[in-house]
Amino acid sequence: MNTIEVRLGERGYPIHIGPGLLADEELLGRCTAARQILVVSNETVAPLYLERVSAAFADRTCRALILPDGEEHKNLETFARVIDALIAAAFHRDACIAALGGGVVGDLAGFAAACYQRGIELLQLPTTLLAQVDSSVGGKTAVNHPAAKNMIGAFHQPVAVIADTDTLKSLPARELAAGLAEVIKYGLIEDAPFLAWLEDELETLRRLDGAAMTRAIARCCEIKAAIVAEDEREHGRRALLNLGHTFGHAIEALGGYGKWLHGEAVAIGIGMAAELSVGLGLIGAAEAGRVRMLLERAGLPTTAAGLTADGIMDRMRLDKKAGSRGLKLILLERLGKAAVMPAPDAALVREAIERCLGPAP
Amino acid sequence: MNTIEVRLGERGYPIHIGPGLLADEELLGRCTAARQILVVSNETVAPLYLERVSAAFADRTCRALILPDGEEHKNLETFARVIDALIAAAFHRDACIAALGGGVVGDLAGFAAACYQRGIELLQLPTTLLAQVDSSVGGKTAVNHPAAKNMIGAFHQPVAVIADTDTLKSLPARELAAGLAEVIKYGLIEDAPFLAWLEDELETLRRLDGAAMTRAIARCCEIKAAIVAEDEREHGRRALLNLGHTFGHAIEALGGYGKWLHGEAVAIGIGMAAELSVGLGLIGAAEAGRVRMLLERAGLPTTAAGLTADGIMDRMRLDKKAGSRGLKLILLERLGKAAVMPAPDAALVREAIERCLGPAP
Repeated sequence: MNTIEVRLGERGYPIHIGPGLLADEELLGRCTAARQILVVSNETVAPLYLERVSAAFADRTCRALILPDGEEHKNLETFARVIDALIAAAFHRDACIAALGGGVVGDLAGFAAACYQRGIELLQLPTTLLAQVDSSVGGKTAVNHPAAKNMIGAFHQPVAVIADTDTLKSLPARELAAGLAEVIKYGLIEDAPFLAWLEDELETLRRLDGAAMTRAIARCCEIKAAIVAEDEREHGRRALLNLGHTFGHAIEALGGYGKWLHGEAVAIGIGMAAELSVGLGLIGAAEAGRVRMLLERAGLPTTAAGLTADGIMDRMRLDKKAGSRGLKLILLERLGKAAVMPAPDAALVREAIERCLGPAP
Repeated sequence: MNTIEVRLGERGYPIHIGPGLLADEELLGRCTAARQILVVSNETVAPLYLERVSAAFADRTCRALILPDGEEHKNLETFARVIDALIAAAFHRDACIAALGGGVVGDLAGFAAACYQRGIELLQLPTTLLAQVDSSVGGKTAVNHPAAKNMIGAFHQPVAVIADTDTLKSLPARELAAGLAEVIKYGLIEDAPFLAWLEDELETLRRLDGAAMTRAIARCCEIKAAIVAEDEREHGRRALLNLGHTFGHAIEALGGYGKWLHGEAVAIGIGMAAELSVGLGLIGAAEAGRVRMLLERAGLPTTAAGLTADGIMDRMRLDKKAGSRGLKLILLERLGKAAVMPAPDAALVREAIERCLGPAP
């Protein structure tokens, strides 16, 4: 087991990474002292892992709420169902929500934990690669608005994150690839040697080699933990973690939160950010090609077929990185170093997007 | 103008109290640097004060959302309307919500400010006595769940509070009395000389004497600011501010959030807490009589006609002051000093409640 600390003073917490961790009743048990636990999961994940998680809390009051699977359920209505379940169980302010699932479950259950009685404990038990390397770490919780993603949410740090790498074995190939988009993102924004290692070991990772996967997840969590410790509420540097996300969120929303997985939309968005970085003369076309190649080798889409540049640009104006002084974008100064920059001339942005729309229908 | 500082480091802010402040465009303007302002108000308050508030922000993008009036609208559905309005206006993360109204508007709009894009600025413009002395100060925001009050919320401090005492002139007598319940509460929990002053000056206050009212509001805000600075997230001492509220929330919920105003339910609850304090031998019956007398002189109910002790006790178990180790109550050690204590034997609680149910129907 590999443990990484998120250093946030009294809000700090450990991230435990390794095989078989969800079966480690002692580990789960000591992550929270709460006597009332609500495990929030979904129809896909619960049949696989709910039993072992509940077993770890057999000595407490442990209830479960099983939600439908999918990003289209990450909304205020499903949030209200979690609150209703907490109320129905008469859970108190010292209760804990355990979020067992991917990014949707973690974000939604996390937001419910942030709001129930103005905040109860949250234990993140991510079961997808995307959640293990990204969404379960750092305290961002949210639900979507029909018009835009993650518009309603809170910063609420978990008491611990337990990433059981064995759960990735049950992950569909498409979801594994979606997680790899975020893994590649960490290399691009912060760590050129890690990016080179990913280029060498991508097939090993896609085969779910245990050692390689633990190493990749741990490195992503290290990078994220360091950034979050420095800028918990995203006043500055934390925005780097959103490379590809401003484009990606627009693509997801336009697809109705069903067509593209979050990681797939982010992959397309990373491609767009790379193309825009080329357009601005920050990186060369060959480097953008290297990015696209790596994403494609990971099994990810790099074109948003069916969308228009205008549609994407309209949606981007609602993005959380937009301010009244204009939109900001995360761009690549080189492979391994990203920077937050004011969005350049709309014509340049349009051109970069158009290069990633694929062939006209 | 009287200004009190809430000392919370980088989350600290001023409370400005005085007559005519809502007409002070310069004051309103300098409380926030946001370029996008959403004024959230209700059908009763907006016709009186919206125009002057909007005028102060004439140089910015200023929109208004007028909600129906009443505690029964302080719920997730109305919260979603505020979010929809922010989205429809394409407001960014550097926007500000100005909450113009009483406690319902402040709590609801405050919760929307806490959650929109994970937190935007909030400017509290309280127009009721209850909001000026209590709910607008200290950062508690929330909406109600059908089963219990303030179950869904967040701690989100405003950037400033502007309490224009002139707005109290348009307040119905019943709402003024409801605010006096919270004013009396501050005397009871913390400040015996202030309580004695209230006993002397109650009629002066009910006549809305400007100097007396400013003094009363400022003293309440001073007490609250000091307690909040010490215990922002209610891990300890802040719970004292809930004297009468555990009983009161149960009474409000049982009345369907329409029968009793919050302050009226709190007044009945303060009476119950005083009776329970007598039952435990903490204070004498004469002192409880003095409390009841003051509440009645303020025009407040002190009996919950139509409710049963069992009904109230059932609801109290859902209260946020309940933990898995049992319910805690705020009781009076003497008039001017409250303490958080574990709820005593249910028979004693029942007896205290029954003494405040009024004559059987």
